[in-house]
Amino acid sequence: MAVGEAIFPEMPMIDGIRLGTSKAGISKPDRRDLVVIEIVEGASVAGTFTRNAFCAAPVHVAKRHLAQERTRFLLINTGNANAGTGDGGMRDAESCCQALGELAGAPAETVLPFSTGVIGEPLPVERIRTGLPEALASLDDSHLAWQYAAQGILTTDTRIKGATASCEIAGATVSVNGISKGSGMIKPNMATMLAFVATDAGIDQPLLEALLRESVNRSFNCITVDSDTSTNDACMLIATGRGARVVSDADVAALRGALDEVLMQLAQAIIRDGEGATKFVTLEVSEARSRQEALDVAFTVAHSPLVKTALYACDANWGRILAAVGRAPVEDFDVERVVIDLGEVRLVENGGRAAGYSEAAGSAVMAREDIVIRIALGRGDGGATVWTSDLSHDYVSINADYRS
Amino acid sequence: MAVGEAIFPEMPMIDGIRLGTSKAGISKPDRRDLVVIEIVEGASVAGTFTRNAFCAAPVHVAKRHLAQERTRFLLINTGNANAGTGDGGMRDAESCCQALGELAGAPAETVLPFSTGVIGEPLPVERIRTGLPEALASLDDSHLAWQYAAQGILTTDTRIKGATASCEIAGATVSVNGISKGSGMIKPNMATMLAFVATDAGIDQPLLEALLRESVNRSFNCITVDSDTSTNDACMLIATGRGARVVSDADVAALRGALDEVLMQLAQAIIRDGEGATKFVTLEVSEARSRQEALDVAFTVAHSPLVKTALYACDANWGRILAAVGRAPVEDFDVERVVIDLGEVRLVENGGRAAGYSEAAGSAVMAREDIVIRIALGRGDGGATVWTSDLSHDYVSINADYRS
Repeated sequence: MAVGEAIFPEMPMIDGIRLGTSKAGISKPDRRDLVVIEIVEGASVAGTFTRNAFCAAPVHVAKRHLAQERTRFLLINTGNANAGTGDGGMRDAESCCQALGELAGAPAETVLPFSTGVIGEPLPVERIRTGLPEALASLDDSHLAWQYAAQGILTTDTRIKGATASCEIAGATVSVNGISKGSGMIKPNMATMLAFVATDAGIDQPLLEALLRESVNRSFNCITVDSDTSTNDACMLIATGRGARVVSDADVAALRGALDEVLMQLAQAIIRDGEGATKFVTLEVSEARSRQEALDVAFTVAHSPLVKTALYACDANWGRILAAVGRAPVEDFDVERVVIDLGEVRLVENGGRAAGYSEAAGSAVMAREDIVIRIALGRGDGGATVWTSDLSHDYVSINADYRS
Repeated sequence: MAVGEAIFPEMPMIDGIRLGTSKAGISKPDRRDLVVIEIVEGASVAGTFTRNAFCAAPVHVAKRHLAQERTRFLLINTGNANAGTGDGGMRDAESCCQALGELAGAPAETVLPFSTGVIGEPLPVERIRTGLPEALASLDDSHLAWQYAAQGILTTDTRIKGATASCEIAGATVSVNGISKGSGMIKPNMATMLAFVATDAGIDQPLLEALLRESVNRSFNCITVDSDTSTNDACMLIATGRGARVVSDADVAALRGALDEVLMQLAQAIIRDGEGATKFVTLEVSEARSRQEALDVAFTVAHSPLVKTALYACDANWGRILAAVGRAPVEDFDVERVVIDLGEVRLVENGGRAAGYSEAAGSAVMAREDIVIRIALGRGDGGATVWTSDLSHDYVSINADYRS
């Protein structure tokens, strides 16, 4: 299942980025499962990674390499997460970087490895090694190369996910392209599953890192399918510097705008393709004492199995929303001040069902695929928006069958 | 679905307690849905209540009445939670207490009201009023009266839940009987759904309250079906004082033992009857820095939809358990020290799959209905045990169909 239409936009070339793929037999036979992203010399690269304490071997290695050398290659495989694999997993991740480095004539430390798929199985290093020449031979900067790369990183996803935006910097147009994957085990903390974003803008590393961190906090860190934070989350941002250079505050604002747009689209695409999803749900919490408090309330509602099953059932069950809000970690909570709206229909005020509410009006909103729930807490001016999906039979089927 | 055998024990009479029921038509036609528990004069009564900020009208009224007067009656209805009902709900709860008080010749404040069922619908006060005489006429202290009362408080439960234990105090035997209800919206915080426990022991009010609080923290506050804390949770403990009086430390210890046994059985019965449950899962976390840290890890695993669907699938998917442990809110977590056992089979050590682990051994444990997962964190001597169920298709069906 997935919500709404699947749109993979026409991706412009990003000068300084080429993408190659191959079918290495890591995942299923005859599907793209190995991706190489080549980055021009002199580019800036920033990354955010999972905060899961059991983070996977490639995450450790990618963080170390990123700190050691200017990155020239991202090496991504699906089908195997190389997580929970101990010291052997670290050696395997290193040896894949080594293999790519040797073929490309670059030090292993210029390669960042990323893996996604089954946890706890040894990484099939030989298959990856064998698949590398084809991936390198196919390196290209075309739309099709972006689309193949977007295919090559998927696991239980039913759709490829891409977004693009552009902005003006010093009179020149720069582009931001991104691809992402993710469908289950989605409750990113610091970054989401996998996302790879590139721009031809030129920008210094510290500023690039700050922009990425802020943008991730507004996008990937505000989505949840099932509250489970993956061991392999990573979001990478590359600025090749082949296009206009970000200098003024206006340049930064312009690039931030384009980056926000791409990351938000990629993050929301993950929710629309959430495992078993039949609804795309926007939870807007306002009038909290802080943004953190608003996030706490939003995620409590977003994670409630009873709210999620009611959404699946198209049941405007405001009592379950109210009960979830009421158990959120909020101090001195005066529930009489809480107002809850479902789309344009007021559900709750004065501690109970809103006076003008009718089942018919609530059900009409619930019948939609895109649903907005607004929760005003009446205690401050903090706010946050979180996106989530529902809990369906398909979610259970997918996760009771798939060994991940 | 439900796990294991349903056992409702032979309940001894508790001197000073009588229970009556009637079919008031609040829930479905022709089922017991109204319960009155009569308490002898001079008894001590303690209660713990939900910490959900949106707590229901009867919870507010019960807390106020408990503080005002010596309690003589508990009045419980199923079919309607009288939650999210605003000021009207408070008046309705009061007026039911008034009606019972008038029939029994007692002040309204000696009656504590409890409601469970649909949230947000007005309480059908007239039906309750009409059902009261029959409930009072049927007051009795027999096993059957306890069993009927256990029936009369159920909602989506598929089983009645009761437990009994006894202990020696000053050479005399005293008994502790309890009944509970609960199946979904189960993640008690301070108390669970509804539980009514009575003993013929005599004990002062402050000591009774302390005993109840401690025992609830070890039992009802350590279970979760779906992480959703109800608006109506309450656990009441009555000591009629018709039997031996608790005086010495040895008396307290004896009563605590019997009380713990009853509450633990009632709490575990709720998990065994968890909505859609096919597994009864015990999560033992040890070697944490504190009991709270152990509880945090245990609940993170217990709430993980991916762990719960793997349990449903009988899949010894240790990677999901490991990923859930890794995202628990634990500072400076050294995952290399974590050891995870599934029953008698070691799953995880040294940051990955245990050396001797085999799928066959893991699957053999997973095939059972009763599953124990032990997680040793290797960082202290704090521990906690939490009980939970799996996440099945039936959970989704029950909650996508049932309006609660």
